[in-house]
Amino acid sequence: METEVLPETIYDVPTPAFLVDLERTKKNCSRMRERCWKLGVELRPHQKTHKTVEGGDLQTDGTRRKIVVSTLEEADFFSKNGFDDILYAYPITASKIQKCKEISAKCEQFHLMYDNLESLKALQNSPPGNGRAWSVFLEVDIGGDRTGIPWDDDRIISFAREAVNLSNIDFQGLYSHDGNSYSCTQGKNNKQGALEEWGQTASSRIVETQRRLKEHGIECRTFGVGSTPTCSVPDGSLSSLTEFHPGNYIFYDYMQYLIGSCEESDIACRVATRVVCHKEEQNRMYIDCGFLGVSHDGLYNGPEQSGMAKFIGHDELKFIGMTQELGFVSTNDGSKLDYQKYPLDSMLFFYPWHSCATAANHSVYYIHSGDKIVGKWRPTRGW
Amino acid sequence: METEVLPETIYDVPTPAFLVDLERTKKNCSRMRERCWKLGVELRPHQKTHKTVEGGDLQTDGTRRKIVVSTLEEADFFSKNGFDDILYAYPITASKIQKCKEISAKCEQFHLMYDNLESLKALQNSPPGNGRAWSVFLEVDIGGDRTGIPWDDDRIISFAREAVNLSNIDFQGLYSHDGNSYSCTQGKNNKQGALEEWGQTASSRIVETQRRLKEHGIECRTFGVGSTPTCSVPDGSLSSLTEFHPGNYIFYDYMQYLIGSCEESDIACRVATRVVCHKEEQNRMYIDCGFLGVSHDGLYNGPEQSGMAKFIGHDELKFIGMTQELGFVSTNDGSKLDYQKYPLDSMLFFYPWHSCATAANHSVYYIHSGDKIVGKWRPTRGW
Repeated sequence: METEVLPETIYDVPTPAFLVDLERTKKNCSRMRERCWKLGVELRPHQKTHKTVEGGDLQTDGTRRKIVVSTLEEADFFSKNGFDDILYAYPITASKIQKCKEISAKCEQFHLMYDNLESLKALQNSPPGNGRAWSVFLEVDIGGDRTGIPWDDDRIISFAREAVNLSNIDFQGLYSHDGNSYSCTQGKNNKQGALEEWGQTASSRIVETQRRLKEHGIECRTFGVGSTPTCSVPDGSLSSLTEFHPGNYIFYDYMQYLIGSCEESDIACRVATRVVCHKEEQNRMYIDCGFLGVSHDGLYNGPEQSGMAKFIGHDELKFIGMTQELGFVSTNDGSKLDYQKYPLDSMLFFYPWHSCATAANHSVYYIHSGDKIVGKWRPTRGW
Repeated sequence: METEVLPETIYDVPTPAFLVDLERTKKNCSRMRERCWKLGVELRPHQKTHKTVEGGDLQTDGTRRKIVVSTLEEADFFSKNGFDDILYAYPITASKIQKCKEISAKCEQFHLMYDNLESLKALQNSPPGNGRAWSVFLEVDIGGDRTGIPWDDDRIISFAREAVNLSNIDFQGLYSHDGNSYSCTQGKNNKQGALEEWGQTASSRIVETQRRLKEHGIECRTFGVGSTPTCSVPDGSLSSLTEFHPGNYIFYDYMQYLIGSCEESDIACRVATRVVCHKEEQNRMYIDCGFLGVSHDGLYNGPEQSGMAKFIGHDELKFIGMTQELGFVSTNDGSKLDYQKYPLDSMLFFYPWHSCATAANHSVYYIHSGDKIVGKWRPTRGW
């Protein structure tokens, strides 16, 4: 239990600070659960965005069952905190198996992901113990610059068959991310149609892969898709999958808003920062959030007009650069900054470009309900 | 004392890992001390790159005196660990004064930095207690996109005079960073002449500012310069300053090597990572270090040819992109990757683009002497 005194409101936090809007977070979580329920797919939420027990509780509706993680540290942290049915969705290689055994010993269900035969054989030769087999998902690349075997590659059949045939291995099915959906950031304010089109492509590729395996006598118990854009604005065809495993949707962010995954009013995290310097000769001001408070993510990807962050209530401001502890802010249209509107030490809030990258820079999240600070969450980190 | 079992060698660490070469680090620290001694300037090393007690000990030769920090958390951490004469080199604003008081109470000497009169008056109205005054440095902008008052601006005189005249304030002198020296990254493999030219410009601007203040009857006890490039390849004229306050030199990095601040053999930190996926159809491989292990810094700044990192012993490799936990690696010249040279699970080491940004992503640094792991350092973080 957190016994230290909390700041009273969001205007009292030390800056820079990562703030989480509790109502928006809960709403994002319940909306995704309802969506999955309606589509008839299971939800296995990814923990990599928030890495907290509290966030995992909201995503799993308190069951602490059926999650995805991206690091062994996350797997360890969540298993220690009573979470189970954990999928470590990362290409497994031999050097990580020992740590996997330790985690597996603490879980009823711990699943791994593979995309090559070498790792599969290493798993066969190093079973988890207690007579159990390794539960494995084959990673399928359905586009988007990730790991995995391309969905239309014949190795899908042989790699799945190998998992079915090898001892100490229990073949679960297919895992895919659908990174393609992120390419919608290339155009600003994409319409939902584009996301639904990606979703349709994703589902058809996964279903086709699963069908081909079935033709070869290999049953996939699970075959799902993971990206937040795809799962937030799903095409109806996604109901033919068994599982969604998005993560970012717990907070969303400015990038997701531009992709079209959410409304601005759904973004559940923001950074609080204060003005520390007026620099009239540069038509700039400096804020106390540099790259250690927000990360560089989006600095070079963001649309020209708005930079890498959306200042709340200040559409005229642009985040133009940073050093370790300073952010540089100017105007979007090159007009003169009206410094009277941003007094020294006054607070600004912005939605970060990529909440996963920004959250990871903070050892504390300040949780607020309205303006009131109601708690702190402490994420795990490392590998 | 660290009692847990250490990995035996740098080839046994869990990946991704941040490795610190103890001999190189010691050499970088002693070389900077000797340089300052020869030039007749004091050294006030910045702690922001490593944020560890052990690093601070090496930089101060065990005295734990005379350091710079960039956050209040660093100030608190180092003061708790017996460091003193600490300069919080960040534009002070009113909301941060209370925390400064708490830190000041633990130090014999705790200095602040200001660049506006409003903050100075807030300090006057809220003295540190015990009859002490706030020791302050005026930040001078001598170029390079930072905070501070431009060196040739008349506010230098009036702002310094205000500090001299106000009660509860003790004017120490001038602080400047010399961010200009970093512009040497624009061209690859800059010759030392360029850095020395910047150093000459820096020293002339600071000395000129100090001289003007003297003409107005204001004495600067301290006037120094801070950037690692400037202090690593100093122009002789820098001997007219009283203080150097660089930080990055403890580790250096690939960016500093390209600037010309150091030799490749001086870079004292590296990231260990393992190959987790071969993706022949993309002429890529994936490593287990994504943006949480290295940061995005340099991804878009690095010279085309080499990307954002220098793979040690593998000049042919280029770090071309990343997701949260995956790095994408291809060849520098577009030729086919020879996958036999990089088996799955094999280790690669790279010098990061910006050691400050990469170190901040790691909660543990693995310290090595030769190939042997000899300890762990644990940095502080946050604000």
